[in-house]
Amino acid sequence: MRNLIIASTSTIYNQGYLEYLLPTLQNHFKAGSTLVFIPYARPSGISHDEYTAKVREAFQSIDVQVKGLHEFNDPKQAIQEAAGIFTGGGNTFLLVKQLYAHDLVQTITEVVNNGTPYLGCSAGSNICGLTMETTNDMPITYPPSFKTFGFVPFNINPHYLDPIEGSTHMGETRETRINEFHTINSQPVVGLREGSWLKVSSDRIILEGALHARIFEQGKAAYEVAPNTDLSDLK
Amino acid sequence: MRNLIIASTSTIYNQGYLEYLLPTLQNHFKAGSTLVFIPYARPSGISHDEYTAKVREAFQSIDVQVKGLHEFNDPKQAIQEAAGIFTGGGNTFLLVKQLYAHDLVQTITEVVNNGTPYLGCSAGSNICGLTMETTNDMPITYPPSFKTFGFVPFNINPHYLDPIEGSTHMGETRETRINEFHTINSQPVVGLREGSWLKVSSDRIILEGALHARIFEQGKAAYEVAPNTDLSDLK
Repeated sequence: MRNLIIASTSTIYNQGYLEYLLPTLQNHFKAGSTLVFIPYARPSGISHDEYTAKVREAFQSIDVQVKGLHEFNDPKQAIQEAAGIFTGGGNTFLLVKQLYAHDLVQTITEVVNNGTPYLGCSAGSNICGLTMETTNDMPITYPPSFKTFGFVPFNINPHYLDPIEGSTHMGETRETRINEFHTINSQPVVGLREGSWLKVSSDRIILEGALHARIFEQGKAAYEVAPNTDLSDLK
Repeated sequence: MRNLIIASTSTIYNQGYLEYLLPTLQNHFKAGSTLVFIPYARPSGISHDEYTAKVREAFQSIDVQVKGLHEFNDPKQAIQEAAGIFTGGGNTFLLVKQLYAHDLVQTITEVVNNGTPYLGCSAGSNICGLTMETTNDMPITYPPSFKTFGFVPFNINPHYLDPIEGSTHMGETRETRINEFHTINSQPVVGLREGSWLKVSSDRIILEGALHARIFEQGKAAYEVAPNTDLSDLK
């Protein structure tokens, strides 16, 4: 019985870290349990220790302990024994490179498919898709592959951003970028706006949060789906 | 004697394709000559033929002929014999993958270092840096390496974008992304605003166009440089 929360962002404008998600996380992770936090994405280059401390503080209020994966001597064993896993945001290229370097991709796939509760935010959500090829991040380092966990049978675009009205900037809009992705890739892409998340329970995938999401399928016009839409058949 | 124009963008808001650059290109490429155009980056997924036709039309007014690299039976020979080379914008990942697939990286490096006039716009400028690791593009495909031509001893960030005042979006600003790059890479990054270009003549690198550029060096605060600044010593 799989159990994942795949969130667009950790933080909503004008709120604290993970604040908007805490009521949901209280049901997702068991009170009194210890979460294994994967800090590899290092947003703004902060250290694994600093990042873990920030996460630890946020989870205190719902009585969940946090231990950084970098604190374990055997990361693979830590994942296998984890009561829950949280992969934080930052740079997806760095995150994926580290996951491969520590040979963790298969292990995480297995335990999450076997029921270990998983939370991903931003980069940690990107890797829940089939590939990381719809990340917004800068390719600051070269991972050995763009293939990721495939917990959902499509790709994720977190921090989905609508075109800015009246912009004179000539760089591509997000929608243009995803359309370019579809000129050479066939899997759908779910554009998750900040404040949305996907709740995966076994094989059911539901859009949660207050916002619509934007769905991109190859060869179709993009379309909006409302909160509580069941996306289990999207593939 | 190297001779390159490394432009942030092909197109300025409210202008035609390459329009702002045409007076400069008239001196850069010889009237009556034939330019080899590299269409691999395929912006918005347009075909190589469509993309080449667009470029051909733009160069007509300055009496330069254009032939797409995909029209030659032997692309390597085409590059070796080219009177000039233009690599257009689009997706940098796709462009770099195709350059490696056609085994063209070394050949282009050699002819440009030996004096074949080169023009790059956007993705075609990214590849003039040491690596493509400061591109803004979505990683829609997996190239065999992020290493690029290194015609300048730093990286390029084209379409450089200042933070949008009052934005409530929680995704990283461009500056944050480049700072993340510098947590694991040491080469400087030149943020070229739309309308700026670098003019490389032999070993001299000059910022041209009407706008300031933003320079990022590892361990230093970012700083602005004015048009006509000599960047030859930046490395």
